[in-house]
Amino acid sequence: MTFSFARKLAAEALGTAFLLATVVGSGIMAETLAGGNVALALLGNTVATGAILMVLILIFGPVSGAHFNPAVTLSFLIRREIGARDAAVYVVVQIAAGLAGVLAAHLMFGEPAFAASMKGRTGIGQWTGEFVATFGLVATILGTVRFRPEATAYAVGLFISAGYWFTSSTSFANPAVTIARSLTDTFSGIMPAHAPGFVLAQLAGAVAATLVFGWLLKDGNN
Amino acid sequence: MTFSFARKLAAEALGTAFLLATVVGSGIMAETLAGGNVALALLGNTVATGAILMVLILIFGPVSGAHFNPAVTLSFLIRREIGARDAAVYVVVQIAAGLAGVLAAHLMFGEPAFAASMKGRTGIGQWTGEFVATFGLVATILGTVRFRPEATAYAVGLFISAGYWFTSSTSFANPAVTIARSLTDTFSGIMPAHAPGFVLAQLAGAVAATLVFGWLLKDGNN
Amino acid sequence: MTFSFARKLAAEALGTAFLLATVVGSGIMAETLAGGNVALALLGNTVATGAILMVLILIFGPVSGAHFNPAVTLSFLIRREIGARDAAVYVVVQIAAGLAGVLAAHLMFGEPAFAASMKGRTGIGQWTGEFVATFGLVATILGTVRFRPEATAYAVGLFISAGYWFTSSTSFANPAVTIARSLTDTFSGIMPAHAPGFVLAQLAGAVAATLVFGWLLKDGNN
Amino acid sequence: MTFSFARKLAAEALGTAFLLATVVGSGIMAETLAGGNVALALLGNTVATGAILMVLILIFGPVSGAHFNPAVTLSFLIRREIGARDAAVYVVVQIAAGLAGVLAAHLMFGEPAFAASMKGRTGIGQWTGEFVATFGLVATILGTVRFRPEATAYAVGLFISAGYWFTSSTSFANPAVTIARSLTDTFSGIMPAHAPGFVLAQLAGAVAATLVFGWLLKDGNN
Repeated sequence: MTFSFARKLAAEALGTAFLLATVVGSGIMAETLAGGNVALALLGNTVATGAILMVLILIFGPVSGAHFNPAVTLSFLIRREIGARDAAVYVVVQIAAGLAGVLAAHLMFGEPAFAASMKGRTGIGQWTGEFVATFGLVATILGTVRFRPEATAYAVGLFISAGYWFTSSTSFANPAVTIARSLTDTFSGIMPAHAPGFVLAQLAGAVAATLVFGWLLKDGNN
Repeated sequence: MTFSFARKLAAEALGTAFLLATVVGSGIMAETLAGGNVALALLGNTVATGAILMVLILIFGPVSGAHFNPAVTLSFLIRREIGARDAAVYVVVQIAAGLAGVLAAHLMFGEPAFAASMKGRTGIGQWTGEFVATFGLVATILGTVRFRPEATAYAVGLFISAGYWFTSSTSFANPAVTIARSLTDTFSGIMPAHAPGFVLAQLAGAVAATLVFGWLLKDGNN
Repeated sequence: MTFSFARKLAAEALGTAFLLATVVGSGIMAETLAGGNVALALLGNTVATGAILMVLILIFGPVSGAHFNPAVTLSFLIRREIGARDAAVYVVVQIAAGLAGVLAAHLMFGEPAFAASMKGRTGIGQWTGEFVATFGLVATILGTVRFRPEATAYAVGLFISAGYWFTSSTSFANPAVTIARSLTDTFSGIMPAHAPGFVLAQLAGAVAATLVFGWLLKDGNN
Repeated sequence: MTFSFARKLAAEALGTAFLLATVVGSGIMAETLAGGNVALALLGNTVATGAILMVLILIFGPVSGAHFNPAVTLSFLIRREIGARDAAVYVVVQIAAGLAGVLAAHLMFGEPAFAASMKGRTGIGQWTGEFVATFGLVATILGTVRFRPEATAYAVGLFISAGYWFTSSTSFANPAVTIARSLTDTFSGIMPAHAPGFVLAQLAGAVAATLVFGWLLKDGNN
């Protein structure tokens, strides 16, 4: 079944907004309740983010492909599974919807509409973290859509749940998420000046995974 | 397979009662054991609620549709997938069974049969939370039953697990649950005077999601 | 495919032994590490128990039915899906294997082979808990094997994960488990004198669920 | 579909490297954030490890079989599902990739490239733990690939999640993992001198499970 482009964009918008509302909202809730125990706060953040990713991909996958992520859209562009113009519109919608999701979280929790984050996240260790995280995320998508398409939604949620803990950067792995999180001065924020480093590492990770898995899963007996 | 209306009502009753026994019972257990750490208490509450929702929808979905929720029944009424009279009986049974579930939890944990909650839950932030929560819950149901019906049970449990953390109101998302929780003076309670605000926000969220997803998933290439 | 009775018994033995090793072993590990926070200890216990149940039912379900539980065997006996003699042998093997599982946990953690538990677990509240827990467990099995057999393993693990939190007795829900846990003086133990009350409540819950679901799921349009 | 041997080796390498990066990286993250609460640290470690195992087996299972583990490769060698020469190359690649994964984790978290662990893990209790853990891991694989192959990835992740809590050794269950973890002086490390005891127990567990399940699941009505 094919959906109209307007419906695809609505799906990308709703999904990305819910994703950001969850990442930011659960960060606020978890930090507030955890009484200073950061491991416990990250656990609440992880449960919420992993779960909502599974749900959103189950819902919107059949409509728009459930990218919610410019790095994923870039991967599909390299693979020629989406055209350049559609990809550009996807990315604009993802970024705008990410901001709307932050706004929704802030409205729910009584925070100001937007506020630049003061949280520093930078350095080679964290950039490596984002490279690994986005490489792994794109690997998860490309690696499951071919042989286990019914498992992609679960695999993505599980990968990001792991990534929150095993990457030093806690796996943003998504430029739209990174931009949106630069505008919340809460648990999940990132200082705006540090966002570009994350985004570059993410795009590099996405390109690398697209190339590696393009070779690895090439048709049949090679 | 079609089940008799009596069996459908029994399924709604058993499911809603187990749901409330779980929400209220696990709230009592978690708060008692958590020694004042609210994040830990919410985590126990989340694990139990998310898990039981998956189980109850797996069991009772084929019998009654596993609504357990007047907001969900309203959505199916708008979509004309249930008649007005059946819907009304469903709602009455859900509310009564929710109270029975609270009673069961109180019996297990040695609490008085019913007690009005003293916990205030009100304000624009929390009403927005309930709107978002119920919008998302109905979106999860409508978005999965068409293309991924075998995943609906898991998706609903996952969505509410996320909602416990990312919405400021901890996602009641259910008028029968709200009424029942107004009669427990424990972790999961809500002051009776604050219940109507939650219920209105829930119904608004359910209607909005029904309309949006009615358009989004309309048949085929539009 | 049908397996020989010897293989079925081996499956029941291995499954029940692993189940008890997990319940008791994870209880020791969790209590040791949790530094007095009982909610955290119960969380570790829950993760391990829920996960191993899913695994064991996936593995042994096709061989023996994966009862691991005299209350479940009783339910299938009432439904005439197992003969009285086979059921009796199943129960003996389950009880013996449960003790072997406790022994394995004690060996791994340097505890004495067996030790009577000093932990009191009694009273109407907890007996109600066991009735509800075993009713729910049997409901989960009977309610999924007919329409969603591929989900039974997950549903059982999820139900017990919820039960650890929402029932006041933490859902033993299994006479073989109860007997075995009376012989460990660690986190998961139950004073031997209190075991019979649990077992009686469990058997009553199993019978009640068998009758209710026998009616609820009776063939077709009634 | 059959993949070239080079692709199989790439899959084993990527999978084992990601596995170790996750085990070691999440150990560092969890211990750093947990503020001395070891149960909470182990919980973060568990969530990450269980989740990544599911993801990696979903991705790489169709390519290489997703062993990532010399004990698993040994089991398939005994079953003659892989030749001796291919098995030997698999094991070499697994060990090398495990070291690469540790390196990646250390790079992300600003640790020195490699450092011998100072953490003692030895004694009959822990060796029994490794025997039980690897017996159970191989049982999980052999027990699901025949009747529930689509569930193997989830079952393995669930088994190891349980094993982190119910075995006294926290379930390394993998010689390549053991060697790699001997070279990180962080949460998940094991003193190099104690690695051989773990490896021997693991190989014994794998052989035992291969024999037991070879009999248990032998074709048909025996």
